[in-house]
Amino acid sequence: MATYQPNDPALRSWVPVPAAHDFPIQNLPLGIFTKAGKDPRPGVRIGDHILDLAELGLLEGDSLNGLMERGPAAWSELRLRVSWLLNEENPELRDRPRGLVSVKDAEMHMPARVGDYVDFYSSLEHATNVGRMFRDPANPLLPNWRWLPIGYHGKSGTVTVSGASVRRPKGQLSRDNQTAVFAPCRRLDIELETGFFIGANRVFGMVLLNDWSARDVQRWEYQPLGPFLSKSFLTSISPWVVTMEALEPFRVPGPPQDPKPLDHLRVPEPRNYDIHLEVWLKPAGAPRATSICSTNFRHMYWSMEQQLKHLTSNGAPVRSGDLCGSGTVSGAGPGSFGSLLELAWNGTQPLMLETGEERSFLEDGDTVTMRGWCEGAGYRVGFGEVVGTVVPA
Amino acid sequence: MATYQPNDPALRSWVPVPAAHDFPIQNLPLGIFTKAGKDPRPGVRIGDHILDLAELGLLEGDSLNGLMERGPAAWSELRLRVSWLLNEENPELRDRPRGLVSVKDAEMHMPARVGDYVDFYSSLEHATNVGRMFRDPANPLLPNWRWLPIGYHGKSGTVTVSGASVRRPKGQLSRDNQTAVFAPCRRLDIELETGFFIGANRVFGMVLLNDWSARDVQRWEYQPLGPFLSKSFLTSISPWVVTMEALEPFRVPGPPQDPKPLDHLRVPEPRNYDIHLEVWLKPAGAPRATSICSTNFRHMYWSMEQQLKHLTSNGAPVRSGDLCGSGTVSGAGPGSFGSLLELAWNGTQPLMLETGEERSFLEDGDTVTMRGWCEGAGYRVGFGEVVGTVVPA
Repeated sequence: MATYQPNDPALRSWVPVPAAHDFPIQNLPLGIFTKAGKDPRPGVRIGDHILDLAELGLLEGDSLNGLMERGPAAWSELRLRVSWLLNEENPELRDRPRGLVSVKDAEMHMPARVGDYVDFYSSLEHATNVGRMFRDPANPLLPNWRWLPIGYHGKSGTVTVSGASVRRPKGQLSRDNQTAVFAPCRRLDIELETGFFIGANRVFGMVLLNDWSARDVQRWEYQPLGPFLSKSFLTSISPWVVTMEALEPFRVPGPPQDPKPLDHLRVPEPRNYDIHLEVWLKPAGAPRATSICSTNFRHMYWSMEQQLKHLTSNGAPVRSGDLCGSGTVSGAGPGSFGSLLELAWNGTQPLMLETGEERSFLEDGDTVTMRGWCEGAGYRVGFGEVVGTVVPA
Repeated sequence: MATYQPNDPALRSWVPVPAAHDFPIQNLPLGIFTKAGKDPRPGVRIGDHILDLAELGLLEGDSLNGLMERGPAAWSELRLRVSWLLNEENPELRDRPRGLVSVKDAEMHMPARVGDYVDFYSSLEHATNVGRMFRDPANPLLPNWRWLPIGYHGKSGTVTVSGASVRRPKGQLSRDNQTAVFAPCRRLDIELETGFFIGANRVFGMVLLNDWSARDVQRWEYQPLGPFLSKSFLTSISPWVVTMEALEPFRVPGPPQDPKPLDHLRVPEPRNYDIHLEVWLKPAGAPRATSICSTNFRHMYWSMEQQLKHLTSNGAPVRSGDLCGSGTVSGAGPGSFGSLLELAWNGTQPLMLETGEERSFLEDGDTVTMRGWCEGAGYRVGFGEVVGTVVPA
């Protein structure tokens, strides 16, 4: 076992995994699930099945907080154990399968109790787009942006696992920036993000994250203390936490940083991860979804490690289970922007969907699906999806 | 018992309570404490003693979250029971005292597990002072301020009970608003606030809250997403939660609101509470503290009920144990401002302490104590204090 490498592309599982599936034996993401009549418990996703870690006596509890707290040695040990249990060469479970649940029979829950939820703003392209639209097209970035990963605290109580309905929020809207009415949001938007869970003061693993946003509410409320109710109604995450060990083969250098980060924000390269990200939008009743965004997490200016270093640089402790969003992931081209605000350029260039409908912001009944994966040699390490359907206010 | 009124000013306890004490039988605030060798448990403060609710079989647990969740009928029932147990006319405990612990033998803990912590900005005088200093002296308030209670999410993981040391935070500081260095904060400040805990979607009770703030960090980091690391290193609260029932006799009308609040923010008058608030500053080694601020919570523009209505107006649920800060409480006159930023007017008018020392911001070794109480007819309903001493970075 000493030379056993769970990331080896040649490994195969006795559990059937279709080609180009998000969850081959090289991935082994962790989540919390229930099956009929049982308590929530930790599991590992493999193909279209879940390995029940509680039934196998490998991990207990209704959240991953305990595991997160135990640190990297415990994470590696569990990964190694699960990989070998699922390996096609190991007869232990292969010949007498137990603890295997079809995903069709399982319901997913929040993988962890989130203590504090922080959302960053770390895509240069996204921050530049927003600055161009609302501030100064010639000088879109504020001076602090390249010095530190801008972020703010969000509402941990409404971070919810994929699948929850997105109730269109109400809020104060202002046309003239002087007076307001209270009405359903008219500019409901998405933000394509990734999130990372903190464990034992490190980055434990990643999920996809949709930071649902009410742009009209945000515009009126956000000065001078930042976004509040425009973001707090719901944040959706994908249910499977892909560990940093599974992502290790997909490290890539980040974009150059100028000015050079101050000492406390310096991290070794490669600091980023090559994760392909997509967003799909499907109106109610449409035969299929339209791809509206295709981008990559590798373009992010500030890395997760830098975000975490910044977050703790004032001396404040973090807790295992704390969650950090990356901020909207936008690429350089228009089809790679991670929000409708940018894709339709503040409503001036509506998107054309395959149904012939146009969209500047979300309509009731729209379903948004975000997907993400790393492309390996003959296999993928994927995140599954985070999905939500808008329901009327 | 049907006509028994725990707020009756004539009630007296068999537990000795000195005159003008914060914790007479009319108060009965709740907290979580430990005494030697025992687990954390709920207690009620009476004079210089704590009634151990666990020992008496009245309430279990290491936090008040469960009680908060049970709602107003349960809160009233507990209050009535404890008041009668402590009443000088009731021999039940008076003649055979048990479950009574001296505060000298107890250590206080966080009264609740805080899910989300929100900090508001609801003093017109404070917002006006800050706007005058940093924005436009002729037009200090942003247009949204009178339409909604501005607020933001803070870090729940560093809300700490009174007494914790205040480690001077480090952070990025900028002189020219173009470049930054990483160094210990030079403009460490206080914010005199109250906080309220939410229970069963209502205001459960109140504490004093010191929103320690790094002004130089804040100035560089806060645009465009609001305060982050400048506030997240520590938030201190007083340990005893004064219930809204105990505060009911001290309701007073709030200041007029113009424009008239939109329907979803309308609340009946009297919407405010008459709570006298004080701040004391004592340098290391000084023989005594100097009073630097005296003000009253009754001046707040937005009330707690309005803050809570706003917080949930987008459809987002709150959880029992969520904590909301009022925002700095500043009165009309200079001696009534709730922050050093305002008291020393951004360093231009340093405070003179009784020791002869000057202060624009906090120095290492400074101890800040906040106190608050309601003045009844011959008795007080008080909050005790929230105190912290600054230690070097």
